[in-house]
Amino acid sequence: MKALVFHGPGKRSWEDKPRPSIDKPTDAVVRITHTTICGTDLHILKGDVPAVEDGRTLGHEGVGVVEEVGDGVSNIQVGDEVLISCVTSCGRCDYCKRGIYAHCRDGGWILGHLIDGTQAEYVRTPHADNSLFPLPDDMNREAAVMLSDILPTGHEIGALNGEVTLGDTVVIVGAGPIGLAALMTSRFYSPARIIMVDPDENRLAMAKQLGATDVISSNPVEAILALTDGEGVDVAMEAVGIPETFDICQQIVRAGGHIANMGVHGKSVDLQLQDLWIKNITLRTGLVSTNTIPVLMRAVKSGDVEPVELVTHRFKLDEIEKAYDIFSEAAKEKAIKMILTAE
Amino acid sequence: MKALVFHGPGKRSWEDKPRPSIDKPTDAVVRITHTTICGTDLHILKGDVPAVEDGRTLGHEGVGVVEEVGDGVSNIQVGDEVLISCVTSCGRCDYCKRGIYAHCRDGGWILGHLIDGTQAEYVRTPHADNSLFPLPDDMNREAAVMLSDILPTGHEIGALNGEVTLGDTVVIVGAGPIGLAALMTSRFYSPARIIMVDPDENRLAMAKQLGATDVISSNPVEAILALTDGEGVDVAMEAVGIPETFDICQQIVRAGGHIANMGVHGKSVDLQLQDLWIKNITLRTGLVSTNTIPVLMRAVKSGDVEPVELVTHRFKLDEIEKAYDIFSEAAKEKAIKMILTAE
Repeated sequence: MKALVFHGPGKRSWEDKPRPSIDKPTDAVVRITHTTICGTDLHILKGDVPAVEDGRTLGHEGVGVVEEVGDGVSNIQVGDEVLISCVTSCGRCDYCKRGIYAHCRDGGWILGHLIDGTQAEYVRTPHADNSLFPLPDDMNREAAVMLSDILPTGHEIGALNGEVTLGDTVVIVGAGPIGLAALMTSRFYSPARIIMVDPDENRLAMAKQLGATDVISSNPVEAILALTDGEGVDVAMEAVGIPETFDICQQIVRAGGHIANMGVHGKSVDLQLQDLWIKNITLRTGLVSTNTIPVLMRAVKSGDVEPVELVTHRFKLDEIEKAYDIFSEAAKEKAIKMILTAE
Repeated sequence: MKALVFHGPGKRSWEDKPRPSIDKPTDAVVRITHTTICGTDLHILKGDVPAVEDGRTLGHEGVGVVEEVGDGVSNIQVGDEVLISCVTSCGRCDYCKRGIYAHCRDGGWILGHLIDGTQAEYVRTPHADNSLFPLPDDMNREAAVMLSDILPTGHEIGALNGEVTLGDTVVIVGAGPIGLAALMTSRFYSPARIIMVDPDENRLAMAKQLGATDVISSNPVEAILALTDGEGVDVAMEAVGIPETFDICQQIVRAGGHIANMGVHGKSVDLQLQDLWIKNITLRTGLVSTNTIPVLMRAVKSGDVEPVELVTHRFKLDEIEKAYDIFSEAAKEKAIKMILTAE
């Protein structure tokens, strides 16, 4: 089969690789019909994730058809069309039992990281019963791909970790895929105001279309304080992963407010505890557990959220190298999510 | 009357001052019968709290007898024996309505800070209806003084903000008054293990008496990881207010765990977000709201907590300068809380 293989920092190729097979009884093998590229894949290609070895197939999002299942798989059948969670979870360990699939003792984020991923014609998925979700016939497959990672991350690590609630003023710093997914899913909880911050005007225009009430492209701290009578915001979400954007969040969160960190950080940040100790704030971090995939599937079905709005580019799976080239210049290319289709 | 008056960094004196009177209809004047000294008072004396002006009477904890009430006071009567909350709250503003009395628009921590405090023969208490608590006859007055600030702070900013729950492993870094109050109140929620960290062996001995399961005086990170099979702890409480102790907390919190910051910080801290972004942690900060005073009064009454165990020294109110001298050398003097009695 063909797969998009990492060969050390800066090097990737769409090349031949043996087709995966069942390794443990709880595995399934899925024929990929749709996948996408995540900002995390670009981080890996830059060499920011040293655990990823030369020869690894990238990708942790996708939809496909089950081709084979191990003897220990009971909920998933050969022929099922399934959504692949970016997080693998055994469902049995202490973390899984607390719903923190992100830290599963025999899983977590391993696809396209510690084991071969979904940017390939076939993928082996461990713990298939807990990590694959059969798709209803009438669910748009492109929408489903958005439920592998991006929408649950915006929902769980943004909206839920930020405790967005009725009437809140929310700021999302960064209008890339994660920031926009947080915007879409925050709207479930009816905040009064969602302010998007990004230097890119195209992304802000998209944010407006998706329901942002205000957009800010420069001097965010001053602009947000001006918009909130100097009070700051109930919820500040960090959706970039650098100290500068975290700093915006800690400067504009009001007393009693929440900071939800969604960005993947490579450096420490200077937490202004001399100001924040007295402010009764809550800061949460986290990798997505994807345990809200089932409710998000219902929200997609009911039309409460339209994840396909995030799809800006479409390619055939074997054009994935071209898709990577474009996604690497995402802001310039007005790219949010790319769909790669095998059929 | 006599009062302990701040006269700029390093300067205090027990001196004559006009007796306070009703200023607004919602005020009361209380004759102090018992008060104490807080670590925060020492911070003020060092000049760390520049908002405190020359001439200010210090102190934000105490018990006394109501001598006068304004026309707008309805729940408190002249002659009532009352507990004075360290936090003044109007009960009517947006923050009070959310239970965040700490950020009351016309209150918060003002006693002994922005208005004259409780280390005096008399004190004027604004918003008396919401900020004073009539004492049952059978409640020990020394125990009640511990409910002005220290016990609610340990409870709300430590145990509740840390979400201590059945079976948890809790670390408290700092076995001073706040750390010990957090220890006593965390026990309400039945954690399996409470590990106290402090360089002072006397304080650790007291922590053991109060129910700590483990005590650590050196190399805390290594020691805690060794005690927890390398996993880290469910809840880490910071009870000192310096970067070094905050750093211990962020190094030993496990995935899915909580950091509760109780310390008053004068500097920023280096938050290790490159490690913590993926760990699904919750960090909370805050000034106490004291809205758990009523439940703590019931817990004292039922014997579920014995706050008098924190009292190590007793003086007459007019010996307060001597008490300050001893409290300034608290570790050496084996001092936790001092009780000053006017009667």
